[in-house]
Amino acid sequence: MQKQTQSQLAIIDLGSNSARLVIYEQDAQGLLYESENVKRVLRLSSHLVNGKLDDRGVQTTLDCMRHFKEICEGRGVTEVVGVATAAMRQARNGPALRDQIQQETGFDFRILTGPEEAHYGYLAVVNSMNIRDAFTVDIGGGSTEVTWVEERACVHKISFPFGAVTLTQLFFKSDLPSREELGQLELFLRQQFAGAPWLTMRKRPVPLIALGGAARNVGNMHQRKNNYSFPSLHHYILPRAEIVETYQTLAKTPLDKRKKIKGLSKDRADIIVAASAVFQVLMELTGSEEFVISTKGLREGLLFERILQEQNLEYLDDVSLYSAHQWMKRYRVDAPRAEHVSRLAISLFDQLNDQGLLLAGYEERRLLKISGLLQDIGLSINVYDAAKHTFYLITNVLLFGMTHRQRLITALLASYKNDKKLEKQFMQHTDMLPAAELSGIKRLALLGLLARTLDRPLTNQVRSISLEKRGNECMVICQVIEQHLVDQAQVTEILDAMSKSFRQTFRLELVEKGIT
Amino acid sequence: MQKQTQSQLAIIDLGSNSARLVIYEQDAQGLLYESENVKRVLRLSSHLVNGKLDDRGVQTTLDCMRHFKEICEGRGVTEVVGVATAAMRQARNGPALRDQIQQETGFDFRILTGPEEAHYGYLAVVNSMNIRDAFTVDIGGGSTEVTWVEERACVHKISFPFGAVTLTQLFFKSDLPSREELGQLELFLRQQFAGAPWLTMRKRPVPLIALGGAARNVGNMHQRKNNYSFPSLHHYILPRAEIVETYQTLAKTPLDKRKKIKGLSKDRADIIVAASAVFQVLMELTGSEEFVISTKGLREGLLFERILQEQNLEYLDDVSLYSAHQWMKRYRVDAPRAEHVSRLAISLFDQLNDQGLLLAGYEERRLLKISGLLQDIGLSINVYDAAKHTFYLITNVLLFGMTHRQRLITALLASYKNDKKLEKQFMQHTDMLPAAELSGIKRLALLGLLARTLDRPLTNQVRSISLEKRGNECMVICQVIEQHLVDQAQVTEILDAMSKSFRQTFRLELVEKGIT
Repeated sequence: MQKQTQSQLAIIDLGSNSARLVIYEQDAQGLLYESENVKRVLRLSSHLVNGKLDDRGVQTTLDCMRHFKEICEGRGVTEVVGVATAAMRQARNGPALRDQIQQETGFDFRILTGPEEAHYGYLAVVNSMNIRDAFTVDIGGGSTEVTWVEERACVHKISFPFGAVTLTQLFFKSDLPSREELGQLELFLRQQFAGAPWLTMRKRPVPLIALGGAARNVGNMHQRKNNYSFPSLHHYILPRAEIVETYQTLAKTPLDKRKKIKGLSKDRADIIVAASAVFQVLMELTGSEEFVISTKGLREGLLFERILQEQNLEYLDDVSLYSAHQWMKRYRVDAPRAEHVSRLAISLFDQLNDQGLLLAGYEERRLLKISGLLQDIGLSINVYDAAKHTFYLITNVLLFGMTHRQRLITALLASYKNDKKLEKQFMQHTDMLPAAELSGIKRLALLGLLARTLDRPLTNQVRSISLEKRGNECMVICQVIEQHLVDQAQVTEILDAMSKSFRQTFRLELVEKGIT
Repeated sequence: MQKQTQSQLAIIDLGSNSARLVIYEQDAQGLLYESENVKRVLRLSSHLVNGKLDDRGVQTTLDCMRHFKEICEGRGVTEVVGVATAAMRQARNGPALRDQIQQETGFDFRILTGPEEAHYGYLAVVNSMNIRDAFTVDIGGGSTEVTWVEERACVHKISFPFGAVTLTQLFFKSDLPSREELGQLELFLRQQFAGAPWLTMRKRPVPLIALGGAARNVGNMHQRKNNYSFPSLHHYILPRAEIVETYQTLAKTPLDKRKKIKGLSKDRADIIVAASAVFQVLMELTGSEEFVISTKGLREGLLFERILQEQNLEYLDDVSLYSAHQWMKRYRVDAPRAEHVSRLAISLFDQLNDQGLLLAGYEERRLLKISGLLQDIGLSINVYDAAKHTFYLITNVLLFGMTHRQRLITALLASYKNDKKLEKQFMQHTDMLPAAELSGIKRLALLGLLARTLDRPLTNQVRSISLEKRGNECMVICQVIEQHLVDQAQVTEILDAMSKSFRQTFRLELVEKGIT
């Protein structure tokens, strides 16, 4: 019953297709846990007659909000954030309905303008992905928001007054659109998108990041078809050709067969053709080579706005570092130790690079750093198989700001114990990492393991490491509080493995601090 | 840096073979997290000369304790619990060394008597396993503790002044013992154990539960040899014949080959023969049919003593329920919801049993109850694949008071979404569950799923369920706050699956509370 004393935040998204209530519980550390997620399909856009929501539409909405009210009360929600989008925005009686909801439930709804809706989508993307330059597209039932992101800032945003539902209604007479109908739809889209001339103004191709249910379905279908090995959809990347292929295949598949496609939800099988036409036309216009799925959207945009306001930021500077710290908190990782191990690993990395013994770049450095922070995350499950759990958690929790490839490498580095286990995990993801990368990953993993081992049993016992060439040998000189703390046998074993891997003999030297 | 404000408990176990320091961090909810685990092999028993620890032994011990002191200070430990066992107990200068440790480090060590050591082993077993009657054996380097447990109480306990190290030294002249040496060792053990006549007094066979490193090694070797599918060692069960086989095989394997056996640690390869002789003789004397590994021992006995003192208990009454609640806290499961879902499932179970539609017993009832409590544990990893994570966590976290079979069934029930996924998980554990059990597990899983679905979106929306036969149909009558809360389509789908599985048509009836 302690739940009731905690802060509970509800977000209600009253969309053109469905209304969704999500309740978050906030713990003592300020972390949010999704504790409830209820969706009601209202299909408001189909109740929009001559620019006005009809009586059934109004009643359905009020019923749903009363229902949500009961749930919020039942769960002791302390704050409700309500937003409404296209249908309410387009309806003349939207404001009146908003007032009625306020009177009956006490919920204060904001009817978002198109650009506001677009902005929240942008916020969700920029704070959950490490992209610098991109377009985003969020296709809903009754509107489509597009933004242009440059150097992480939102440079342009626009909302088009058509969505997957309305396009389907407007252009397709039957379940299986004709060639002509498809041509008319594409033409219409090109004309509409011409209203945003900046769509075609990018010099170099940048990714198109797609939000919303239709995009998730496109990603899901593709993952299922290819037996994709990584358990995540956010930041899944499809090359442009796959979007063309998806659109063309869906367009000529009858509805009953579409409903059987794995990864496509049945209640979206009717509108997926129109949605993928939008994706295809946008890929073409923007010249994007990559189509990237974002599972984060409006709702997360609202959450990020709150978090960022507290920190007086427009967007997170380093998404992956922020996200790693969130997970460290949640799984009670010993932060000072993790930071120190991470620092030692990076120090080794930099010196090996300086000495020309490692040819690795900024990305590898970042992955090594984050893997140092998350190395002990698996201890929370149990201490015996901690490395296995570290791998499981890093691949399964949604680490923002990283591609799947980067998350996989981070997991491999953080959970590294020996080559045999690494190879076994590696082999399960050959669709993501070419075999040629294995040796490079092993070298990085050894640096992480060395840093971890030097920091046991006492964290910070090794204050710093310097590499020094002496003849043919590379000395690993550790400034240590007391020599006997370091498990020299274990460290030497790792240095021997490094010697083989780097084709350079490494030797340990411990120097007690203050003596040199 | 917040670590330092939290309570940190250190337990130091100064054994005959090695000294171990384990640091636990306690969170705001009182849950313990193991944050450090350091072992130093001191081999004190080999420094015991004419009943006295020699100078090297004394110095090694003091060095180690100073080392542990540094670690404790470095990590901000707030309380240290130190215990010493056989070597210190048997040494005339044990008390003097204890005092010296106190002066130099401030650590207050208790030198445990044999029966005290035996008692902590018993406490560890009785509070981590759901056994009622058993023997326990804890074989260390220099002593062996045996207890008799009846109705969960410790009826007899005894400590023998020999352990795996001293027996090896006394009886084996070379690495490969002769037949004669083995015979002498067995004879000696029988004579010694005759000092505890209660060992042979059990009318029915009860399990022999084995604690300590040698037992863990026996379990590990067996799991590796058989490619055991479950990721846990605690409560692993070997039939008597496997203990006989293990002993005989080890006794005739030369040391260098023993060192290569998978699952056997190299530094125990020399003493494992003597240890398995003890296991084999005890199995024979006690007439036990089952040899059960406990990974919990002295250290956990000390922890349980503290926990139980707070609750004024000798031992936990229901280990599995206590353990399930610990994990619910750790993974922030919504307890009121989990309890309600569990109650609804049990109510369905009982009524189906009463109506003769389900032939299931007390064990199934308990597993269904616990699976209801843990159903949402996977939400903590992420909400998208929560069922998969629930399965992972239940099989990988150490749920006390359950056999592996019970933990696996609990995981299958708690994570049930559909038959296909259940079957896939089931097929990975055919070494643990015979195929004939699948249909029974499916039926239980459907009850759990029904309870879960009826409790969404609002917990406690369905107050109670009663089953009523009407003609050929069995009505599932739900007392509900408001009818529209229940997702009738989804519930009906589950009832249809139940109708097939139970060969009995089930139908839903919603009754608003207060109307009937």
